[in-house]
Amino acid sequence: MMMLDEFSLIRLFLSEIRAKPCLPLGPSDDACVLGLPSNEVVLTTDSLVEGVHFTRDICSFEDVGYKAVMVNISDISAMGARPLSILISLFLPEGFDKKALLEIARGVSMACESVDCSVCGGNMSRANGGLAISITAVGVLCGDKPILRSGAKPGDLIYVSGYLGSSALGLKLLLRSSNEAMRFGFLVSAFKRPSPRLALSEALSKIEGVHAMIDISDGFLQDLSHILRQSRVGAVIECETLPVHEQALEASRILGVDPFLEALTGGEDYELLVCIAPSFAQGIETLGLKKVGVITERENQIVLLREGKPIALPERTGFRHF
Amino acid sequence: MMMLDEFSLIRLFLSEIRAKPCLPLGPSDDACVLGLPSNEVVLTTDSLVEGVHFTRDICSFEDVGYKAVMVNISDISAMGARPLSILISLFLPEGFDKKALLEIARGVSMACESVDCSVCGGNMSRANGGLAISITAVGVLCGDKPILRSGAKPGDLIYVSGYLGSSALGLKLLLRSSNEAMRFGFLVSAFKRPSPRLALSEALSKIEGVHAMIDISDGFLQDLSHILRQSRVGAVIECETLPVHEQALEASRILGVDPFLEALTGGEDYELLVCIAPSFAQGIETLGLKKVGVITERENQIVLLREGKPIALPERTGFRHF
Repeated sequence: MMMLDEFSLIRLFLSEIRAKPCLPLGPSDDACVLGLPSNEVVLTTDSLVEGVHFTRDICSFEDVGYKAVMVNISDISAMGARPLSILISLFLPEGFDKKALLEIARGVSMACESVDCSVCGGNMSRANGGLAISITAVGVLCGDKPILRSGAKPGDLIYVSGYLGSSALGLKLLLRSSNEAMRFGFLVSAFKRPSPRLALSEALSKIEGVHAMIDISDGFLQDLSHILRQSRVGAVIECETLPVHEQALEASRILGVDPFLEALTGGEDYELLVCIAPSFAQGIETLGLKKVGVITERENQIVLLREGKPIALPERTGFRHF
Repeated sequence: MMMLDEFSLIRLFLSEIRAKPCLPLGPSDDACVLGLPSNEVVLTTDSLVEGVHFTRDICSFEDVGYKAVMVNISDISAMGARPLSILISLFLPEGFDKKALLEIARGVSMACESVDCSVCGGNMSRANGGLAISITAVGVLCGDKPILRSGAKPGDLIYVSGYLGSSALGLKLLLRSSNEAMRFGFLVSAFKRPSPRLALSEALSKIEGVHAMIDISDGFLQDLSHILRQSRVGAVIECETLPVHEQALEASRILGVDPFLEALTGGEDYELLVCIAPSFAQGIETLGLKKVGVITERENQIVLLREGKPIALPERTGFRHF
């Protein structure tokens, strides 16, 4: 049974937040005043729901707090912006215990510290059902303007950062056997503790030829299709060039799945998908990007090539929770 | 069964939002860029949860959308700020239907229109349990500085706007009989469709002698105690001066409750509680404020007077949902 009232719970939660100190006006009033380095702000909100995005048997509460922050930071970052602060809305099931609350706070705090982001507000409500956490992140642009989904142009080269399919395979391993998953630290971390590409996004925000960007949260194909729809263009993707970690290859063998299908549709990698004019692409791979295809004029059309030949699109292009 | 995917649901939801048009960068990217009239921003977040803050039998989905916006706008307003935009996080139970989603959107839209506020972002997740809605509101200060809870000084006069206890009595009537409640439109509206005091807050933000302010969401005594704790002062309240609507008097007789106890502890009135230096208080009642007490030096001590004599504090000082 939870014996503390809302205000004590909030104080308890804040006691674990070691990120950049809250603004003095933060936790004592219902709203906070945040000073900005410019008069533009980048805003986003995203949620994690127990039983939908995580379960207690495969994620610790610390993981949940950490990831809830990072999925929002990733969206800020994918606009070519850097995070400043977050607001946290917690929905706590009846009987949710203090220790678990502190673990969430620790995860939130670790994530905020690692991206130099403060906590400027929040709210706690009783949940009607499972635990849920909703975060709103506030950031500012790194460059002069945001990098949108709508800017891709025919002829742009398509790049991705890091490795794809890692998170989805990490989750599949965890669901099968947590003992087996232990051997695949890279994949499990990709699922539990995503690292948004802040430095890369900042570097890209200063390159004029970067036309469009998105973070790969719903799955490569689904996120690519967002860019195609908003930019009214198409794409050709060479499947073999999709960056897949060696642990992903091994895990796919064990799980009996196709690592390239995981890379195309898995989602939750929080890597960047970037469209860059060819004349600006020289040396771009030194930033940690890999070329996987090219933007075409054929609106909303994705052509997948495998060994040079077109293959059918997978039926499921990414994560759906309805 | 809900047959639409997340993106179709979001488009459907946005089709009902007739508030100030979203910024062009809003709904198509994961984050939005919001231009501000200054480089300071006021932020707050609050949630409504089915079974905790509302139930479907006494509130329409339109009411829920409307109120979720207004409780946040009220927090912005109580800082001496005006709202600019909101982000909406929706948690939809499995099988939640399109018609209900549109009703929520209509309520959100009506509330935003009435306070001239845009919708700049949002997110939809499947709920694990009942419906929930979490909103983050963004605003800017009306005056040079925010009005905090921490500024009250001994000798300040305590004022409240509107009527107290209305919302709590409206809820009690609704819980007993919706037919009976129909006669008490003022009380039912206070519960279902709160109207934050934006114009009043803006006027107060320009008066130097306004030392502290809070909106009455948790109950007059509980919200007053927040000011007392943050300001390290006490208060004397004259119960008879608490503004109580004539419908509240009549409803209290029918319900067999004490209207002044409802005024002290009911909560959710979203009226303002303001502490003003006496030298600035002349004519302040013309703004729609009523004097109910005075700030004292006795830290955290509330003295309640009834017919000039101190009475005991009620055991429950306001709303608690844990």
